[in-house]
Amino acid sequence: MDLALGLAARGLGQVWPNPAVGCVLVRDGRVVGRGWTQPGGRPHAETEALARAGDAARGATAYVTLEPCAHHGRTGPCAEALARAGVARVVHALRDPDPRVDGGGAALLRAAGIAVEEGVGEAAARRLNAGFLSRLGRGRPLITLKLATSLDGRIAAAGGESRWITGPAARAHGHALRASHDAILVGAGTARADDPSLDCRLPGMAARSPLRIVIAGAGPLDGAAKLRATAAERPTWLIVAAGAEGRFADWAGAGADLLPVAAGADGRPDAGAALAALGLRGLTRLLVEGGAGLAASLLRAGLVDRLACYRAPMLIGGDGLAASEALGIGRPGEAPRWRRTGLRALGDDLLETFDAAD
Amino acid sequence: MDLALGLAARGLGQVWPNPAVGCVLVRDGRVVGRGWTQPGGRPHAETEALARAGDAARGATAYVTLEPCAHHGRTGPCAEALARAGVARVVHALRDPDPRVDGGGAALLRAAGIAVEEGVGEAAARRLNAGFLSRLGRGRPLITLKLATSLDGRIAAAGGESRWITGPAARAHGHALRASHDAILVGAGTARADDPSLDCRLPGMAARSPLRIVIAGAGPLDGAAKLRATAAERPTWLIVAAGAEGRFADWAGAGADLLPVAAGADGRPDAGAALAALGLRGLTRLLVEGGAGLAASLLRAGLVDRLACYRAPMLIGGDGLAASEALGIGRPGEAPRWRRTGLRALGDDLLETFDAAD
Repeated sequence: MDLALGLAARGLGQVWPNPAVGCVLVRDGRVVGRGWTQPGGRPHAETEALARAGDAARGATAYVTLEPCAHHGRTGPCAEALARAGVARVVHALRDPDPRVDGGGAALLRAAGIAVEEGVGEAAARRLNAGFLSRLGRGRPLITLKLATSLDGRIAAAGGESRWITGPAARAHGHALRASHDAILVGAGTARADDPSLDCRLPGMAARSPLRIVIAGAGPLDGAAKLRATAAERPTWLIVAAGAEGRFADWAGAGADLLPVAAGADGRPDAGAALAALGLRGLTRLLVEGGAGLAASLLRAGLVDRLACYRAPMLIGGDGLAASEALGIGRPGEAPRWRRTGLRALGDDLLETFDAAD
Repeated sequence: MDLALGLAARGLGQVWPNPAVGCVLVRDGRVVGRGWTQPGGRPHAETEALARAGDAARGATAYVTLEPCAHHGRTGPCAEALARAGVARVVHALRDPDPRVDGGGAALLRAAGIAVEEGVGEAAARRLNAGFLSRLGRGRPLITLKLATSLDGRIAAAGGESRWITGPAARAHGHALRASHDAILVGAGTARADDPSLDCRLPGMAARSPLRIVIAGAGPLDGAAKLRATAAERPTWLIVAAGAEGRFADWAGAGADLLPVAAGADGRPDAGAALAALGLRGLTRLLVEGGAGLAASLLRAGLVDRLACYRAPMLIGGDGLAASEALGIGRPGEAPRWRRTGLRALGDDLLETFDAAD
């Protein structure tokens, strides 16, 4: 199952709205087939593994990170394919909560005389597919907030310059983080000030660049020249307050996709409504890369699930730009606490990752 | 020598203005005596080790972390004592730059027919005695800046409350850090706002509490009730702008020691002048515990040698108190970089230590 989970992780960021699944077929103690969900969500992991195993699948055990599907989509259900291939036993980590499956895959397998075991490696599978589970269970993608700061929590110097706080190793890791998410979200201020391209610039991984999303504020988005210029080539969504679509007609003309959502009290798109709209479009994993205003609005609403804190060994001082705008926390004891899930050195920098505490 | 360095470290914070030294006597592959500089700086490590070894010192090799002293102080020089005890060979890590020694100890030993070897473990010994070397070489103590922050670099919440950002393990470590320094320095704002007692509250270590020093600003120090109330019992120094002593007569009356130093352009005691005054008084290791104004003035002047960053897994937001006031850094590339020397988890918190990059 560990091997299957490793294979599944290859699909993260590439398979939405589908889950990233891994499958390993084992017969007589030997791996006879491996597969994982392919970019775009098809073929499924089981189909891939069965194709590789061929006749060797007969009598094998299939280790799958998610319950095999039971519904007829563009292809037949995986549970049927496993039965047809003569697989003797299926071990899966997690019941698929998709209402079209939800135990139906396991029932179909059992009805075909196949032994089914559930829940092996379930915690890891839950963590791996937290984005897919979030979309199904909460109607919104999993939110990872990326912060690249100095030791004193600054994301830019007094002059507004953020290039470069972290070093090359941390920046490369940040690009890999992009590739493992379906989309990158930035606020209008960051889009204007940094004129980012928001792509994955690791060698050979340009095709894994996630789609780019900007939450537009009240003003125009004049500074975001790169995003607009490439909106026809690479999917670019612009979340705007309902009724304000007309103000961004130039973006629509350039190829961007406008998503009108309910406005908050400040006239800007409401953060919760924006995430719900992204969930409806099928996004499972969203990486938020700034700025301080967007971070604060998501944090205040309790919408951030994970933190990725890249930290460089420098002090920028109180005149630098804070990582988050005001959160209105009166005493340290009131601040939500985060649970560390990872810690590693990246060159001179440090990466700490956290999950929201339950 | 590693053993001797470990013994020497026990004296840190307790022996100023003297260096913290360790000595191990080995004969026939067996340790026959161990010693380290005792609180207050006397007896010296060699004296202690020789007393423990007794006759077994004859023919032994002495491993000492610093060149044995050659000058007559309250007791005779250690080099003479080693010769008198019949030690055959002395290995020391570092030449003592004190002008009263500076090779004289080694010369005295050699004249007595003792083999002398220098420089074994020198880098570690230099690091261990960085405070003593700073006092001699730069006329000021080694400065460690302690920062206890949230992930976004806040030392207090919007309401000014800093208790508690870090958890019990980090706070206990912070008390041990106090014990390894000669003195704690805080700015007037911190003294007023936090009313700290600045002692070492680890069980059994109250006697290792360092002396307390406050840099007074322009205003009165009314909030610092605990420091003033205990000034007669525990050494408490108040650094004041020359000419402003009269304003702090109440502190002098309470038992505090006033240190007038030259004022800077803002009328407050100049940071460099203050550190020079502390060096003259013999301080070797100074721990700076806040606040943001004092941190900024020391950082801007390039006077911070080490950082101890305790970081708690919470975000406080831009309305919290920044760890350092403005540093005037226009671009990240202009910020001095720090070299990580340590990283450890303390409960849910993380401690990162740094040295100033050369």
